[in-house]
Amino acid sequence: MSCLEMNKTATKTKTLIDLPKKLPESLALTALVLASSKATISIPWRNWVIRGIFTWVMIFGFALMIYAGPLALMLVVLAVQVKCFAEIINIGYAVYKIHGLPWFRSLSWYFLITSNYFFYGESLVDYFGVVDNRTEFLRALVKYHRFISFSLYIGGFVWFVLSLVKRYYMKQFSLFAWTHVALLIVVTQSYLIIRNIFQGLIWFIVPVSMIVCNDVMAYMFGFFFGRTPLIKLSPKKTWEGFIGGGFATVVFGLMISYFLCQYPFFVCPIEFNEELGRMTLDCEPTPLYRPQEYSVPASLAPVVRMITGKNTVMIIPFLFHSLSMSVFSSVIGPFGGFFASGFKRAFKIKDFGDIIPGHGGIMDRFDCQYLMATFVNVYISSFIRMDSPQKLLQQIYSLKPELQLELFTALRDSLTARGILQLAAP
Amino acid sequence: MSCLEMNKTATKTKTLIDLPKKLPESLALTALVLASSKATISIPWRNWVIRGIFTWVMIFGFALMIYAGPLALMLVVLAVQVKCFAEIINIGYAVYKIHGLPWFRSLSWYFLITSNYFFYGESLVDYFGVVDNRTEFLRALVKYHRFISFSLYIGGFVWFVLSLVKRYYMKQFSLFAWTHVALLIVVTQSYLIIRNIFQGLIWFIVPVSMIVCNDVMAYMFGFFFGRTPLIKLSPKKTWEGFIGGGFATVVFGLMISYFLCQYPFFVCPIEFNEELGRMTLDCEPTPLYRPQEYSVPASLAPVVRMITGKNTVMIIPFLFHSLSMSVFSSVIGPFGGFFASGFKRAFKIKDFGDIIPGHGGIMDRFDCQYLMATFVNVYISSFIRMDSPQKLLQQIYSLKPELQLELFTALRDSLTARGILQLAAP
Repeated sequence: MSCLEMNKTATKTKTLIDLPKKLPESLALTALVLASSKATISIPWRNWVIRGIFTWVMIFGFALMIYAGPLALMLVVLAVQVKCFAEIINIGYAVYKIHGLPWFRSLSWYFLITSNYFFYGESLVDYFGVVDNRTEFLRALVKYHRFISFSLYIGGFVWFVLSLVKRYYMKQFSLFAWTHVALLIVVTQSYLIIRNIFQGLIWFIVPVSMIVCNDVMAYMFGFFFGRTPLIKLSPKKTWEGFIGGGFATVVFGLMISYFLCQYPFFVCPIEFNEELGRMTLDCEPTPLYRPQEYSVPASLAPVVRMITGKNTVMIIPFLFHSLSMSVFSSVIGPFGGFFASGFKRAFKIKDFGDIIPGHGGIMDRFDCQYLMATFVNVYISSFIRMDSPQKLLQQIYSLKPELQLELFTALRDSLTARGILQLAAP
Repeated sequence: MSCLEMNKTATKTKTLIDLPKKLPESLALTALVLASSKATISIPWRNWVIRGIFTWVMIFGFALMIYAGPLALMLVVLAVQVKCFAEIINIGYAVYKIHGLPWFRSLSWYFLITSNYFFYGESLVDYFGVVDNRTEFLRALVKYHRFISFSLYIGGFVWFVLSLVKRYYMKQFSLFAWTHVALLIVVTQSYLIIRNIFQGLIWFIVPVSMIVCNDVMAYMFGFFFGRTPLIKLSPKKTWEGFIGGGFATVVFGLMISYFLCQYPFFVCPIEFNEELGRMTLDCEPTPLYRPQEYSVPASLAPVVRMITGKNTVMIIPFLFHSLSMSVFSSVIGPFGGFFASGFKRAFKIKDFGDIIPGHGGIMDRFDCQYLMATFVNVYISSFIRMDSPQKLLQQIYSLKPELQLELFTALRDSLTARGILQLAAP
């Protein structure tokens, strides 16, 4: 459900024939073998098989990415972002028929590069600021990062104005707006995904897999029990799928969260180890990921005592956050899908692309992921807040020495007043 | 030049007749008296007079705003922003003919309120974070600010999806994009203006008056000496106006900067005084605004020695920054105007509105201001950086006590190692 569209049957055969151009050769071969061996199976079932196979291919690819580590993951996020941008922009080109429009392709891509330079740079400055100060050149890049990014953007802006041609004014401005909305959706949100990854892989894996689970399970529940239509925008979606998918997502979310909390690899924030010269995922997990004792409400106490023999229960606090995320991903998440399917209907297209057999374009699979990424980012900054002392120290060191001293004195006085610091300490 | 359009003659008479509805009564009366008394003057000259009068009305209003202090100024920035948004959105409504489109006006305004809540809140949290923690309710508003803003936004997003109606898909998505581009231009940039004001009124007055000066002087130079066309987009603009306006802006910028640097009222960052319970503009001005000794390059030394009798000159460092800003406002600034006039041509409108007689809408006068505001903001963060210890302390206090202690120790060791802190100090 949510992000899955069932009424794509008509385009499937075409997709199969197009395969060799669109996929790595080995995958294409598998698909071709399948396509020929299943030739006798009726079309809807063949779609099921193709779609199912590529769902597993994607899940396996996802696991492989995680295994490859955070740097590889960030590169994949970047690649997905570029592909999504290309898909959205290409629809714009088709809608406004850009034949003869001067410079437009180059300009869109220039803006994509500029905004990525800005956003990826902001992440890097925050996390590797101290490290990158090694050479004068890198130091300048870090210090003037915003100014450089802004100058690059202004370059594109001036270029756009100079490229304006009377006959095309309207189209040029529409595509300019289109490009900027695409940047807003794709670039800013993939920047948020990267920031979530830095907080620990668990903040990436749990929400992403929740959306996938909700997609798949809502589809299943809808397929077997679906009766009551949910929303006019997507006629195949049902209340049964919506509710069943929601429950499945909550249960799945708790299970995967519990599992991931056992491994430092998943819960440790990514930090740059200067000695090793690479990113590390090693730490003493914070209490957030370790079982804590909670006292239960009086009304439930007898039941709990019967089971555990105590008035308290041990729960990993992260599970509460997992609950919030799964509720968001199953209640609000689908609206990302509705929005995308409304958009596709508005511009009379079936899919954003045809790169994944049985699923459409990359954007068709990531529509809800972007909304979810923003939610997780806001959630972390509001409820988790893991301001690291390292980051703050770096900001302090950029102050003038006398201000550093002023801050130091104020901090010392405050810590002493609150009894955190004993003045006797050297 | 730049943001001024000369070819509006045709609409002027209409504007005059419309006046009583659009202006405060006193102004409208003046304009009407003028209109009747000058009835014998030829139309182009009447336009000059009307336009000139309202240029002075605006400059006088600007001075009055400054005098009224920072809080009033921020409210005016907010009012201007709302009016600009309304003008841009109304063009969208006219282009897509929204009769019968469900909920659209309400949705646009809802998004405007949401994004203002977010951005103005971010400013307030940064500057008054400590103060606002007085009551539990305000504390929660501050702590969960992002989460609340995001929830509000998501509310609008879900509302939009639910309001989608088959017949109008295309129009609804286009207006959704239009609203978001308008928010991007108007709300984010007026947030940057507010942040500039917080750094000191000088960072607001100098850039704003530079753009005004460049507008007026480029128009004057163009009018008297203009011969060589500059750009096809605005046929009345000439190289003579561009260059003359640029020089005038640089000279004017240095003069006004020198003047403003004399008064703490203009150069002090805005700070909230807890004892007085209001914002204050009082400080010991930093060296940035006071004359500093600069040694001159060897080649110029003899000339300088002849005039001052020394090998050094006294210059206020802010004047260098004033120079950068005036170069930007006269070279890149006009592109904001070109962009706006291209936009108006694309959608076949003369002006964004008709609220200011002889000038058009508010947006017609602020098109270049927004670009400039972003430049100044980026410039400050790259070259001035006035990270106040106060703000950093606040972030430190939000850490867990043991992390605060960890940070304290690291800071102490670093300060000692660099010889800034003598350990003997109590």
